[in-house]
Amino acid sequence: MKIHYECFACAANQCQKIVEMGTDDLELRRKGVIEAAKLMASIGEDSIPAVFGSEVFLGVYRVIGNDDPFKAYKGISNRLAEKVVSDLEKEEIDLKTALKLAIIGNVIDFAVGYSPEGIEEDVKAMLGGGLYIDHSDELFDRLKNPRTLLYLTDNCGEIYFDRLLIKKMKEAFPYLEVYIAAKEGPIINDATVKDLKKAGFEDLGKVVSTGTRIVGVPLDRVSDGFKAVFEGADVIIAKGQGNFETLSEIEDERVFYLLKAKCRPIARELGVPQGSMVCMRAK
Amino acid sequence: MKIHYECFACAANQCQKIVEMGTDDLELRRKGVIEAAKLMASIGEDSIPAVFGSEVFLGVYRVIGNDDPFKAYKGISNRLAEKVVSDLEKEEIDLKTALKLAIIGNVIDFAVGYSPEGIEEDVKAMLGGGLYIDHSDELFDRLKNPRTLLYLTDNCGEIYFDRLLIKKMKEAFPYLEVYIAAKEGPIINDATVKDLKKAGFEDLGKVVSTGTRIVGVPLDRVSDGFKAVFEGADVIIAKGQGNFETLSEIEDERVFYLLKAKCRPIARELGVPQGSMVCMRAK
Repeated sequence: MKIHYECFACAANQCQKIVEMGTDDLELRRKGVIEAAKLMASIGEDSIPAVFGSEVFLGVYRVIGNDDPFKAYKGISNRLAEKVVSDLEKEEIDLKTALKLAIIGNVIDFAVGYSPEGIEEDVKAMLGGGLYIDHSDELFDRLKNPRTLLYLTDNCGEIYFDRLLIKKMKEAFPYLEVYIAAKEGPIINDATVKDLKKAGFEDLGKVVSTGTRIVGVPLDRVSDGFKAVFEGADVIIAKGQGNFETLSEIEDERVFYLLKAKCRPIARELGVPQGSMVCMRAK
Repeated sequence: MKIHYECFACAANQCQKIVEMGTDDLELRRKGVIEAAKLMASIGEDSIPAVFGSEVFLGVYRVIGNDDPFKAYKGISNRLAEKVVSDLEKEEIDLKTALKLAIIGNVIDFAVGYSPEGIEEDVKAMLGGGLYIDHSDELFDRLKNPRTLLYLTDNCGEIYFDRLLIKKMKEAFPYLEVYIAAKEGPIINDATVKDLKKAGFEDLGKVVSTGTRIVGVPLDRVSDGFKAVFEGADVIIAKGQGNFETLSEIEDERVFYLLKAKCRPIARELGVPQGSMVCMRAK
């Protein structure tokens, strides 16, 4: 997906959040956003938001001298999401519900400070809503025969919902071979390989790094190892907006996007109302 | 005032607003923000927000082919503010109240669509609040002897509140010679010389242009004619944030700032809580 007009201000706002989370020093924050302004000049009509955003963010990290400004935020998200998912698992959860939960996990900001009980209520309320595009029957159908699945994760917190979905898929399709991918190092609140390992994903499949800290899976930046896994997969589940942004132009029908269209550009690109949840086969 | 860390994202958000108001064509909006991103690269540690912002905005105007994206917005603001002020004038208004009203006029977004009655209620509620810094006695004291006052206006809408204050000052200080300044051409929702003339300011004093479309009064950009007026004034009333941003470093004690510290950088610079209304003599 190429840049939409809203992506510039959105990236600038994220830079502000990064310097606020990354340092208390007003002078460093100022240097950070000035660096951001310089790096943003490279935006062109073909820029992919997730890619130019990540490059700018990493430049800001360097200037403010903090390589992981979202560290505390991610820690809180993971702890809270783990608790919420473990509570949810006390009730019977079917495969389709697990899929919806994985999308809902993409929506919740676990670290804004409300209680696990509050989040659980919100999650259950969201389960009542339907998917605006639902190709999940086709997705599950494709997983029926012995298959290789590559699961591209998105954010911390959310990964505990992903873990539940993968568990349910493995119960339903016992011969499934699963690869679960995350970023090579910290970038905003995205999950890293380290986060996946800490969350026990190695019990469910093979944890792989995309080989880059760029958000999404920019195929010109990923490692050769990751590319081999990507090419060898029969089915690819791509969680969240960043993965969509970096894959939407390749029109690879092995890919299923699982996301909520949180912003207008993504909604416009998908042709769905903003806020829609979708499980959508790539065209 | 030099750039604070919040100014970058704020300018980016204003660019988004400009392209949204300036054109319905998504492709042009995209070109507009890409131009903004390029122009923002010139931001340095000494940049003045009002100045670099204006330069970026004018670049966006060029790319989207709309030289006055806020035209309709300004028209609504002026019409609504004129009605509100004329209703307020039905009651007796003293000089100090007129001064507070001029600050309040800087705060209200007249064009968001609520009724004159609703605005009047809001204005009266705001009149109940005090000024966090109040040097108005000194200001009025300085206007007592035959004096030349330069009044630097800020936004459309607000100018009708300025007109009321100037009227009251002229009643109180009959020998006052007044110059009222506005921008040479359209820039965001700032008042232009044309707006002042339409609002009848020529009945109150001499209407002058700053000679530039840059927000505020950047003394290295204003016309020679304006500079002569600026230098000859005994007292200068500078309304709003843009005028403050461009004058704060010259430490000219003829200047009195009349504004509400709407954003954190201005509040930080003034050393007042965000949201404070001030009538403050320049240090």
